[in-house]
Amino acid sequence: MDIDALRSAHPEHWSKATAIRALTLDAVAAANSGHSGMPMGMADVATVLFEKHLKFDASQPNWPDRDRFILSAGHGSMLLYSLLHLTGYEQFPIEELRNFRQWGARTAGHPENFLADAIETTTGPLGQGLANSVGFAMAEEMLRAQFSKKVVDHHTYVIAGDGCLMEGVSQEAIALAGRHELSKLIVFWDNNNITIDGTVDLSDRTDQPLRFKAAGWHVQEIDGHDPEAIDAAITAAKNAGKPSMIACKTHIALGHAAQDTSKGHGALTNPDQMAAAKAAYGWTSGAFEVPADVKSAWEAIGARGASEYTAWQERFAALSERRQGEFNRRLAGEVPNKLAAVVRALKKQVSESQPNVATRKASEMALEVINPVMDETVGGSADLTGSNNTLTADLGVFDVDNRKGRFVHWGIREHGMASAMNGMALHGGLKPYSGTFMCFTDYARPAMRLSALMRTSTIYVMTHDSIGLGEDGPTHQPVEHLAMLRATPNMLVFRPADVVETAEAWELALSQTGTPSTLSLTRQNVPTLRTDHKNKNLSAQGAYVMADATGKRQAILLATGSEVAIAMDARALLEAEGIGTRVVSMPCWELFEAQDEAIRKRVLPAGPVRVAVEAGVRLGWDKWLMGERGREAKSAFVGMEGFGASAPAETLYEKFGITAEAIAEKVKALL
Amino acid sequence: MDIDALRSAHPEHWSKATAIRALTLDAVAAANSGHSGMPMGMADVATVLFEKHLKFDASQPNWPDRDRFILSAGHGSMLLYSLLHLTGYEQFPIEELRNFRQWGARTAGHPENFLADAIETTTGPLGQGLANSVGFAMAEEMLRAQFSKKVVDHHTYVIAGDGCLMEGVSQEAIALAGRHELSKLIVFWDNNNITIDGTVDLSDRTDQPLRFKAAGWHVQEIDGHDPEAIDAAITAAKNAGKPSMIACKTHIALGHAAQDTSKGHGALTNPDQMAAAKAAYGWTSGAFEVPADVKSAWEAIGARGASEYTAWQERFAALSERRQGEFNRRLAGEVPNKLAAVVRALKKQVSESQPNVATRKASEMALEVINPVMDETVGGSADLTGSNNTLTADLGVFDVDNRKGRFVHWGIREHGMASAMNGMALHGGLKPYSGTFMCFTDYARPAMRLSALMRTSTIYVMTHDSIGLGEDGPTHQPVEHLAMLRATPNMLVFRPADVVETAEAWELALSQTGTPSTLSLTRQNVPTLRTDHKNKNLSAQGAYVMADATGKRQAILLATGSEVAIAMDARALLEAEGIGTRVVSMPCWELFEAQDEAIRKRVLPAGPVRVAVEAGVRLGWDKWLMGERGREAKSAFVGMEGFGASAPAETLYEKFGITAEAIAEKVKALL
Repeated sequence: MDIDALRSAHPEHWSKATAIRALTLDAVAAANSGHSGMPMGMADVATVLFEKHLKFDASQPNWPDRDRFILSAGHGSMLLYSLLHLTGYEQFPIEELRNFRQWGARTAGHPENFLADAIETTTGPLGQGLANSVGFAMAEEMLRAQFSKKVVDHHTYVIAGDGCLMEGVSQEAIALAGRHELSKLIVFWDNNNITIDGTVDLSDRTDQPLRFKAAGWHVQEIDGHDPEAIDAAITAAKNAGKPSMIACKTHIALGHAAQDTSKGHGALTNPDQMAAAKAAYGWTSGAFEVPADVKSAWEAIGARGASEYTAWQERFAALSERRQGEFNRRLAGEVPNKLAAVVRALKKQVSESQPNVATRKASEMALEVINPVMDETVGGSADLTGSNNTLTADLGVFDVDNRKGRFVHWGIREHGMASAMNGMALHGGLKPYSGTFMCFTDYARPAMRLSALMRTSTIYVMTHDSIGLGEDGPTHQPVEHLAMLRATPNMLVFRPADVVETAEAWELALSQTGTPSTLSLTRQNVPTLRTDHKNKNLSAQGAYVMADATGKRQAILLATGSEVAIAMDARALLEAEGIGTRVVSMPCWELFEAQDEAIRKRVLPAGPVRVAVEAGVRLGWDKWLMGERGREAKSAFVGMEGFGASAPAETLYEKFGITAEAIAEKVKALL
Repeated sequence: MDIDALRSAHPEHWSKATAIRALTLDAVAAANSGHSGMPMGMADVATVLFEKHLKFDASQPNWPDRDRFILSAGHGSMLLYSLLHLTGYEQFPIEELRNFRQWGARTAGHPENFLADAIETTTGPLGQGLANSVGFAMAEEMLRAQFSKKVVDHHTYVIAGDGCLMEGVSQEAIALAGRHELSKLIVFWDNNNITIDGTVDLSDRTDQPLRFKAAGWHVQEIDGHDPEAIDAAITAAKNAGKPSMIACKTHIALGHAAQDTSKGHGALTNPDQMAAAKAAYGWTSGAFEVPADVKSAWEAIGARGASEYTAWQERFAALSERRQGEFNRRLAGEVPNKLAAVVRALKKQVSESQPNVATRKASEMALEVINPVMDETVGGSADLTGSNNTLTADLGVFDVDNRKGRFVHWGIREHGMASAMNGMALHGGLKPYSGTFMCFTDYARPAMRLSALMRTSTIYVMTHDSIGLGEDGPTHQPVEHLAMLRATPNMLVFRPADVVETAEAWELALSQTGTPSTLSLTRQNVPTLRTDHKNKNLSAQGAYVMADATGKRQAILLATGSEVAIAMDARALLEAEGIGTRVVSMPCWELFEAQDEAIRKRVLPAGPVRVAVEAGVRLGWDKWLMGERGREAKSAFVGMEGFGASAPAETLYEKFGITAEAIAEKVKALL
């Protein structure tokens, strides 16, 4: 690459872009860790984007109508941190860059959204940023339709690398973006032909432009170091009327001895090579130093959006007070007052009518009363709409000609769905919930973990949650998935027992502002157990006494979801034999864990035999059986020991021994 | 669709294909559950494939050189079961079809490979069969190169639906197949334009032929009900010199009132509509009845390969006895005698040299001695070759011009990698192992679950297995992944503490014939703890005493992997204060669980304080702390309570309190 030619052709651009390269080299060297090459290769694209196109104001990182900038190739985090420092974000003084990848710094190895306002999403797991961006762009379309383009009208820009495009989730994302003609989504592909193992050719020969065209995208191919070409391509992309992919031919680690090699992908820390690269750039400043003129040019870019921000504020102020309040409430993620009221009313009604319905149906009943009072909910399903019961009458289907639609047909794309839901939640103003079969949390897993890590309050509606789904067999029957989800930090796992608990779970899940929830729901019908109406949300305690022992309490049965009814039947058998038996429903372990010991002790006192019942694996249950004042010799578990099988649900419960009789026998054997 | 025209144009073909349709209708109606439409739509394609192209002999389902037929759209399982019945597979009498989806039947809701010889793989989770097929086709290429085309020379045929093609893993699969020019892989896309939610257009407008072309595939588009077109397309595909996709325009639920609708996707059980469809077909037989002439025509197809099988046997018999033995040993999945010897020698050597290395490096040391004595191993990495340490000197890289290469650069495609590994293992003759960062088991999760369910002995080499990876931060730091894997039935999870345990883990993982293994390996160095050489594989017990208490045993420290060394340091601190402390290393919980109680009790006797140490979440540990003769009041856990952070590894261990000092304090507080 002829550095001198680049420099002399566009000297002002060059010095700004080089500031990114120099800071990247300095920070990675200081940390002795990180990825130098990507920021060095994409500095030109990022500079043009920030200078000429990105709508932002560095003093207003939370401006709701800012353009979103998503660094899907998250290992190149120094690109983002350099930009945030150079443009003058208050949270990114030079000290942050000096502390790159150190304890307590905002400049984590990969961008983490919860560490700084201006970091839109957490990336690093490849493909996620790209798939998030579909949710960001959908959210913009929806909110623009709901609040008008006076207050919502922005673009979503993404930088994705070869790794992002190799991950399968990228296909789900680009197909969704193409299907929905998300014309304000613009993706830069850092086409540098290098991955960690070597040249891309080692593992891939996909014609990426053709692949994007096949998905309905506008595609351009440019020299990613030519600022004029970059500028023109972005302008064309904005006018394309489709999602747009700009293939940027770049040189990884531009100007460094490791340029165009896989070594350039990693940490470039050799002092001599760093010095040589800086010399080639014509960069004479010391480490972490940026010449005043360059810094002020960047700060001018950071302030460029100030007038636009002011104009936006004026347009926002022109909205009615009610609309302003609604907008702000939704951005803050606060639930409307009406939520508690409609949930209470539903609980009261079903406590009386006592329907025998699947909890997936119960979920639909809850959504039917919730969606009308919460315009921010966005439902969806991975092609199982009639099974997940996530589409209510009033939502309407999101489509090119119906941006007010609040239900998304995600297609058979659980991973892309979950990742886009994260993007919607991160965008703000929407509460996404969507469903698939619980077993296919496996497909959505990378994005579900990120929901928890990123502290989005995404809601996963996972139906067909056990062998209770019957004939579809073990490929469709979760047995380990509750344990997997419970193992994940910062994830609420609800497994409600009936309509009332399901409505309570929805209220709790929607009320979260920093924690995702998974609702584990049955395919098969279950009776209403909460027949005595209480205004109070009992599920908020995580676990509570569903039915107490009559007379001396000799046994406690702990159960969740569809197994609570079975435990109640077992209790009837035991009580009939004079064995006082309490049933504890545990719709949410995490919420119960958060209770004071006094409360937990009231629910799970020492003494009685304990038998837990759940149509899943035992892993995790020992905490409640032998911990919390329990004893090994006085406890047992009734559940699954391996995978399920294909047969009618009743047969499976019988064959796998999850029956009232089996529970009663276990209790008696332990007494 | 003009059924009469189809029927009169090719009457013999029609009656054979209609047998599939009729049996499908009958079985789904009997089960009152299942998916009728897909088998009815793809019956013509399957009939032509089986009649004219598929190399198979129904009396020899395990013939190693048979063509493989993979039903990726596994919900259409009655297509497969009908074919297996009609062509005369002994395991599929009509009773099996009558028992479709019932307890104990081979005809499970979705095809399950372990229920019958002729079911090549387990499908249902969409996209998996397609991604498996890449492994099947790679295995064929490798084995052909190793054993010559006299004994290995077959095709892999796949039927995939819209759901398979929407799942992201399909992109990983088709890109890999295109990259490696897997010319013996032929995929039929059931292009029926219907998914569960409605027409495909609801969620997808991808130009699939163009997408496959972008990945380097040969593509044809045909009428999937025209037997001549189907035949010609398969012939062309065989000669394409590339992987080939045949887009088959079909009508789901052909000839039924539900044809071309999403209702047709599901269970068609209305008796009148069934009767009408059969009448339209000209099918006059009763339920589960096939006219004798049709059945014998199908049985002739099933016997068509007999002479080819005999010829193959003759060619096989012409191999040297040594080669025959090697081929048969590899097909049986048996390890060579030399394995134990090289592992013992390595253990002895490192017990003496006592290197301080990461267990990922230890894994490489093991592979360096194992790969040369096991030609069946196939290594790989998802673009982290130098980090996973899975490439040894002798393997060679699998490529178009090096089919003998035994290392696959999978690219950044953990899911496709794992699914293809399953395909290789199911093909037989190979032992696939491949790696990525442990945190990205999330991406591979759907295929890893299927390894366990399908009973393949696939080996996952998951490195960078805790906060010990340091600066890359929480997106890359597994904390819940050990719990997730341990929750999965039929999965061995090894977390070795040093080089010796790593070598032992490899020996155990390679010796499995029906269970996959995950090796959880460190990025950071750990000391050699097993300095006293024993020929015996101590890890085979799952857990054992690494160092016993001197004097009175007051505490037991339980630990895995990198935390065993920390536990040993804690033991030193405690012993120095006169507190007799045992350290138990637990490299594999599952193997320990399988031991007799007497052995478990010897390792974990009642009485002493127990503290478990693992740089992951606690979930699951209570079994060993409070169960197995433990007590809540005398146990504690030292590990992670949430996600990690970005900082140097030593800082993280310190900040998260996983230190010898913290362990010793816990013990003393409990005494």
